[in-house]
Amino acid sequence: MRRMQLSRAFTLMEPGPVVLVTTSDGQKNNVMTISWTMVVDFTPLFAITTGPWNHSYAALRRSRECVIAVPTVDLIDQVVRVGTCSGADTDKFGECGLTPVKGKHVSAPLIRECLANIECKVIDIVKKHNIVVLEGVAAYFDGSRKEKRTLHAVGDGSFVVDGRKLNRRNMMRSKLPDGV
Amino acid sequence: MRRMQLSRAFTLMEPGPVVLVTTSDGQKNNVMTISWTMVVDFTPLFAITTGPWNHSYAALRRSRECVIAVPTVDLIDQVVRVGTCSGADTDKFGECGLTPVKGKHVSAPLIRECLANIECKVIDIVKKHNIVVLEGVAAYFDGSRKEKRTLHAVGDGSFVVDGRKLNRRNMMRSKLPDGV
Repeated sequence: MRRMQLSRAFTLMEPGPVVLVTTSDGQKNNVMTISWTMVVDFTPLFAITTGPWNHSYAALRRSRECVIAVPTVDLIDQVVRVGTCSGADTDKFGECGLTPVKGKHVSAPLIRECLANIECKVIDIVKKHNIVVLEGVAAYFDGSRKEKRTLHAVGDGSFVVDGRKLNRRNMMRSKLPDGV
Repeated sequence: MRRMQLSRAFTLMEPGPVVLVTTSDGQKNNVMTISWTMVVDFTPLFAITTGPWNHSYAALRRSRECVIAVPTVDLIDQVVRVGTCSGADTDKFGECGLTPVKGKHVSAPLIRECLANIECKVIDIVKKHNIVVLEGVAAYFDGSRKEKRTLHAVGDGSFVVDGRKLNRRNMMRSKLPDGV
């Protein structure tokens, strides 16, 4: 897992993959499956929708830190398992065979098995809409991984796997931020 | 294009496809390409990130209505063209060969060529983060279309096309809302 340019971290989230969001309450790590996310700025800023119904929310709110980890298709059953049990009564990392890795800027762990990880600080919570706004402070990408296809949750219990990639870079050049 | 159950409309957006968002200022229709979107609630509520840098934003803010249209891979060049010209000096529907269709609940038009359309009301604008919160009030799906693969913008000028679908419905049943 190597550092990647922070200015490119939004490209991990813009396609809309289902992600794992880790937190630490100082004693215990937790992780939740989230597909309600969006990019808010290139800097990068991200929004995720979560609230008290997720056990992770208390640690997220108190520590004001988390890691967004991007899993690939080979991790689908871990993603589903993380999303269907609760950190209230489960050590999700152990249960799901995920390996926490110490980050540099936040107390929440990276996930070794994931394609990419973004260390994030909570910069605002829009309580009215259960929207948490995050700033990415460091990003990592595992370029050595062969499987790079991410998953998109449909919301009905099915997932769409990344298919082929189409290039429209020349047509879009005027709209791309510097360095991307 | 047939009405679909509103309770299932979030499943159009949860996978994170790039979408077209239409507006009307009462005289002229406009459309923008947006990939910074997320589901906020099953009801359905959606968030999109936009602001004064989009010409559509003025009409969105004043009319407090829009339509989210979901294009498929065969429309990629229209999606890119819509995203790289401005409604300030272009009739984007005419220019891009998109057909506006009158909706039932909002002044903004549906797009005939798209796989799905969701009529939306603006219920809040979180100015600090340029987040607009939308409530879907009617949804439509064109089941007669053969091409149903949507596009995911990476943000670097490339797009990922939907690949195969994996079913984890049994494992996830406890987490699915009623009727989904």
